[in-house]
Amino acid sequence: MTTQTLNAAILGASGYTGAETIRLLAHHANVRIGPITAHAQAGRSLGDLFPHLHPFAERNLVKAEDVNWDGVDVAFGCLPHGTSEEVLGKLPDHVTVIDLSADFRFRDPRTYAVHYGRTHTHPDKTRSAIYGLTEFAREALANRPPIIACPGCYPTASLLAIKPLLEAGIVLPIDIIIDAKSGVSGAGRGLKEGNLFCEAAEGIHAYSVGQHRHAPEIEQELSLASGASVLVNFTPHLVPMTRGELVTCHLKLAHGAEVGDVRKVLSQRYAEEPFVKVAKAGACPDTRWVRGTNLCLLAVFADRIPGRVIVVAVIDNLVKGSGGQAIQNMNSAFDLPESEALTMEPLFP
Amino acid sequence: MTTQTLNAAILGASGYTGAETIRLLAHHANVRIGPITAHAQAGRSLGDLFPHLHPFAERNLVKAEDVNWDGVDVAFGCLPHGTSEEVLGKLPDHVTVIDLSADFRFRDPRTYAVHYGRTHTHPDKTRSAIYGLTEFAREALANRPPIIACPGCYPTASLLAIKPLLEAGIVLPIDIIIDAKSGVSGAGRGLKEGNLFCEAAEGIHAYSVGQHRHAPEIEQELSLASGASVLVNFTPHLVPMTRGELVTCHLKLAHGAEVGDVRKVLSQRYAEEPFVKVAKAGACPDTRWVRGTNLCLLAVFADRIPGRVIVVAVIDNLVKGSGGQAIQNMNSAFDLPESEALTMEPLFP
Amino acid sequence: MTTQTLNAAILGASGYTGAETIRLLAHHANVRIGPITAHAQAGRSLGDLFPHLHPFAERNLVKAEDVNWDGVDVAFGCLPHGTSEEVLGKLPDHVTVIDLSADFRFRDPRTYAVHYGRTHTHPDKTRSAIYGLTEFAREALANRPPIIACPGCYPTASLLAIKPLLEAGIVLPIDIIIDAKSGVSGAGRGLKEGNLFCEAAEGIHAYSVGQHRHAPEIEQELSLASGASVLVNFTPHLVPMTRGELVTCHLKLAHGAEVGDVRKVLSQRYAEEPFVKVAKAGACPDTRWVRGTNLCLLAVFADRIPGRVIVVAVIDNLVKGSGGQAIQNMNSAFDLPESEALTMEPLFP
Amino acid sequence: MTTQTLNAAILGASGYTGAETIRLLAHHANVRIGPITAHAQAGRSLGDLFPHLHPFAERNLVKAEDVNWDGVDVAFGCLPHGTSEEVLGKLPDHVTVIDLSADFRFRDPRTYAVHYGRTHTHPDKTRSAIYGLTEFAREALANRPPIIACPGCYPTASLLAIKPLLEAGIVLPIDIIIDAKSGVSGAGRGLKEGNLFCEAAEGIHAYSVGQHRHAPEIEQELSLASGASVLVNFTPHLVPMTRGELVTCHLKLAHGAEVGDVRKVLSQRYAEEPFVKVAKAGACPDTRWVRGTNLCLLAVFADRIPGRVIVVAVIDNLVKGSGGQAIQNMNSAFDLPESEALTMEPLFP
Repeated sequence: MTTQTLNAAILGASGYTGAETIRLLAHHANVRIGPITAHAQAGRSLGDLFPHLHPFAERNLVKAEDVNWDGVDVAFGCLPHGTSEEVLGKLPDHVTVIDLSADFRFRDPRTYAVHYGRTHTHPDKTRSAIYGLTEFAREALANRPPIIACPGCYPTASLLAIKPLLEAGIVLPIDIIIDAKSGVSGAGRGLKEGNLFCEAAEGIHAYSVGQHRHAPEIEQELSLASGASVLVNFTPHLVPMTRGELVTCHLKLAHGAEVGDVRKVLSQRYAEEPFVKVAKAGACPDTRWVRGTNLCLLAVFADRIPGRVIVVAVIDNLVKGSGGQAIQNMNSAFDLPESEALTMEPLFP
Repeated sequence: MTTQTLNAAILGASGYTGAETIRLLAHHANVRIGPITAHAQAGRSLGDLFPHLHPFAERNLVKAEDVNWDGVDVAFGCLPHGTSEEVLGKLPDHVTVIDLSADFRFRDPRTYAVHYGRTHTHPDKTRSAIYGLTEFAREALANRPPIIACPGCYPTASLLAIKPLLEAGIVLPIDIIIDAKSGVSGAGRGLKEGNLFCEAAEGIHAYSVGQHRHAPEIEQELSLASGASVLVNFTPHLVPMTRGELVTCHLKLAHGAEVGDVRKVLSQRYAEEPFVKVAKAGACPDTRWVRGTNLCLLAVFADRIPGRVIVVAVIDNLVKGSGGQAIQNMNSAFDLPESEALTMEPLFP
Repeated sequence: MTTQTLNAAILGASGYTGAETIRLLAHHANVRIGPITAHAQAGRSLGDLFPHLHPFAERNLVKAEDVNWDGVDVAFGCLPHGTSEEVLGKLPDHVTVIDLSADFRFRDPRTYAVHYGRTHTHPDKTRSAIYGLTEFAREALANRPPIIACPGCYPTASLLAIKPLLEAGIVLPIDIIIDAKSGVSGAGRGLKEGNLFCEAAEGIHAYSVGQHRHAPEIEQELSLASGASVLVNFTPHLVPMTRGELVTCHLKLAHGAEVGDVRKVLSQRYAEEPFVKVAKAGACPDTRWVRGTNLCLLAVFADRIPGRVIVVAVIDNLVKGSGGQAIQNMNSAFDLPESEALTMEPLFP
Repeated sequence: MTTQTLNAAILGASGYTGAETIRLLAHHANVRIGPITAHAQAGRSLGDLFPHLHPFAERNLVKAEDVNWDGVDVAFGCLPHGTSEEVLGKLPDHVTVIDLSADFRFRDPRTYAVHYGRTHTHPDKTRSAIYGLTEFAREALANRPPIIACPGCYPTASLLAIKPLLEAGIVLPIDIIIDAKSGVSGAGRGLKEGNLFCEAAEGIHAYSVGQHRHAPEIEQELSLASGASVLVNFTPHLVPMTRGELVTCHLKLAHGAEVGDVRKVLSQRYAEEPFVKVAKAGACPDTRWVRGTNLCLLAVFADRIPGRVIVVAVIDNLVKGSGGQAIQNMNSAFDLPESEALTMEPLFP
């Protein structure tokens, strides 16, 4: 393993994913936080935007175009989609790009164009980018690819739950129903009425039903896993909490398969994983049990309807679903201990 | 219509359903609140338990066995299951019983025994009780049945969403998946660790997966609606909010049926209903839009998977899911205006 | 008393105070809701902005300048300050104006200019407006004054707690400390980062310390009550809840006065009031006990420091602190039953 | 500095303070977590009680009386008061006791008896215990005293704000008003109705006004600081959030002192402190800016009333107000780096 110190740039630090990446990197033994960028907020100090990042409060935010990239080893892209690929696509080759946006997640730029409403300006780069669901990407990551596309928060939880089951052929690649629930931080720091405290507290609603852009992303990966063209029912709900994401996957068992087999497949697949754990039968994982951490907890339940199974996954959308997995990918790509900076316990209560 | 004043007893006023029934009855033009009972808390004033019920703060709580039933017209049973049927089963015949517990919901006392772990002591009464999902029970209610069993909160929302679709044959009676989300008040006022603020705030988890007692209740009614023996996937989640319940029903369309047909069936079925409304296409009903009211809002969404449909229902679990529907049933049974005492607007924000 | 039906206009219905006024007026026996205005949102339906206002969902929002004032009896001004006096100051004389903004609260337009940073364009109207803290304004309201300025939410709670004590000379008009706590709805529906769920949930902070514009308003009224020029320490805090306001008043007793005397003065002053109640010794009023209602609860506590007393007041900032008191003022001015449309019980839990 | 590894026992791990101490110690470079005790829950695994403590999930809880104290270096007492001194008072001399309960906070056991309603059974030990407000106790801690009494959460915040000001003589030791606000975790994990989600969410109330047991504790320390006998107005409020505590101190300036002097005294006093910071003029510290950390942020504000000043302090009640300060005290007493295991950034949002 390397003992180097990496110089990391954070691009787009005015949002929650940027701030979370900084929070997690703050005590990384092998990372020095280098340039921190923002666009509209350039010129202000990071402490003005995020007073909780005490050690970096005096750091000035600069524009991405003003960064001197010499000596920068890795860039975390925390920019909005669209902006992201335009900025990241032009970085010098010596910078390893870890993108937290959606811009490099699709292997086919046409799919991206359909769902994100714009033509990709670096189609070759998105074709060759690595989809960084770490637990399934280590071989590719070991080559330190130029661009690592971190999965969306919902896809992270959904794929960790379903992908091994399709690969094992133990559930069917049809009628996959993912009923998802997320805290409000998943919507970012943008000023939208629906994200106001008074509009989000003390209530729940579904949103983007059948139309959420994480659905095609999940479908891409599940199709690769199953060899078939998979469509999913993906139904997200906004929950009055800040962090946390839970997906409830309602699945059809393959002929002859039983619930215990499902638990066994997942347990075996993740037996050596530091961040994915399968709960004991009967336990109902709570997002509080992973808050602030890079963990994903899975649980398997019998359905009352024969031939079906329910798999639940919980993550912290800002950690395993965003900044934490990004760091896990960096650790993996740079041959650092994969858990470095990611070993904290959940903040409970 | 009658212009009488009914004398109503509230049995079991130390819990949330009892308090909510009193809150709603407080300004009912045709009801006088008579005896208010509690067991462990008998002898205390209602204001000691529920300081928000200002007009009744000085009312003394008495034991159910000490009530003089002469002159009492209607009894709202807000007791725990088990206790409920033992107390209510013995009331004099002139008292119309409206039970908010589970005790008289099952037409077959053996089903009750299986799921509630005890033998019903009034099996004949449960066989003849009316299942008071008001919108489907008016004919039976018009005869002022001796016992009206109010549906559970989850069954209320689920049945209002699914029952007309099965009756119309537009969705299939198989693979019915009800992914449900409830606020914490659904768990009552009992002292359980999981209901503490620090354990319920800022997180979400599934519970009683595949084993919740509202599942057989839903199955009973859907089986009646479809003529087949229906099993459902019923997966409830605890959401960090006090009131509100949302069920997301993932359904298979009958051959040839389309999403628009589903919206049409529901719209027609509820066109004249004061408390059930179908949202416009695209709207995502929020539990905040019904908070404190007897309303149920429904919405229909296309699934990405062909041949499927998603129906969402939201209610306030303490009103339409409990005390409000109980009063609606009373209004209906006593030939009072059905909306009396139930016309408030939601408390938003 | 009158049996007329008043035609009420709501000016500025895109914010929470406007929506709350409509919610409360919805079932007022003597009011018909007439024109509903908004500026940026004109042309949309009210249901687009506030889906919970079901009976008015189809109502179109119009611009204030497009209202035909013939036949309008009363106008509720729910506009931002500045805009408010400019719009309301020009209404025809036959319209009784009930303003929920700050624009007509100051008897001296120079004080307004200092604290609101603009010159009042209707200085004579603000001089003659009635400060509508209903419990202290009935005599003036009985004459149906042209403009009624509803107090701010914090002043409402603070003045109900302190004013009778200064009038009785039982506390000193010096070192008056008002430590205040408010839910987020007090900040309105505007898109500010601090009002986002993720920024307001799970934390508390003080704001505008020593500089909040409700301080001079409180000082104006307490100076009138005491005959001296009163300054107050007013320290507000933002609490992670939607509705509710609690003020904790730390006061010095007059020589020889005791805590029991304070409770007695308040109890006597409010003995006949429908909306102000003094809690029993020992009770700690909770904002939940008034949520959704026009009530103000007061409580008196001994201080550990001799010669001091603590008075707590709780209100719902959107009802008694805004739309509810506005309707109470209208009822009073039009000789309607003062509690009409304001008799609901709190929504608890 | 030492490079030893300390063997630490956690006594009373079924509550939040015990769990939080374990969470923080989990990655302490010089600590191995040894025996973990509970009374009613003995025999269960820690994971049964606190599933979020993943690395210790399999650890068995034992009764305190069954612990073999050989080889244990330090015991963290997380027991209820009363139980605490009875258990801790009997530990062998080689164990350094760090008590998070109130039992050893009072230098005079008679004061303890008055406020905690029981006679101390180890009066000599409480007389000689060190009051571990770390920033003011380092000299005494350096001698590794047998018993370190960690301050209460409210006293921690209050004393950090006020004590240097009294020591400097810049505020008067009279009319000290501490208006305090705490999250629900301060009330512990006990099953009390007031701590239920439905009773604590969406509202605020004062409690124990004039009677809270943290008042005499604050008075003890402020009296020592000022040389006079100090009484304080201490008025706590319960805020609907899990973690966090904010105290608003309303103080009288000494003759001639100004607000800027107050800020200067605090800034100088804490200039070298790792965990106490004074905010820039104008900033309003938020409990979110310290959540999950051992930080205390202070801010100084001008009062509208001349001759007065307002000082605000925020902490995380479970860290600096409990488990974190306990570890800080251990680090100090054992000559370890004082910040070891306490350098995490706040969890925001």
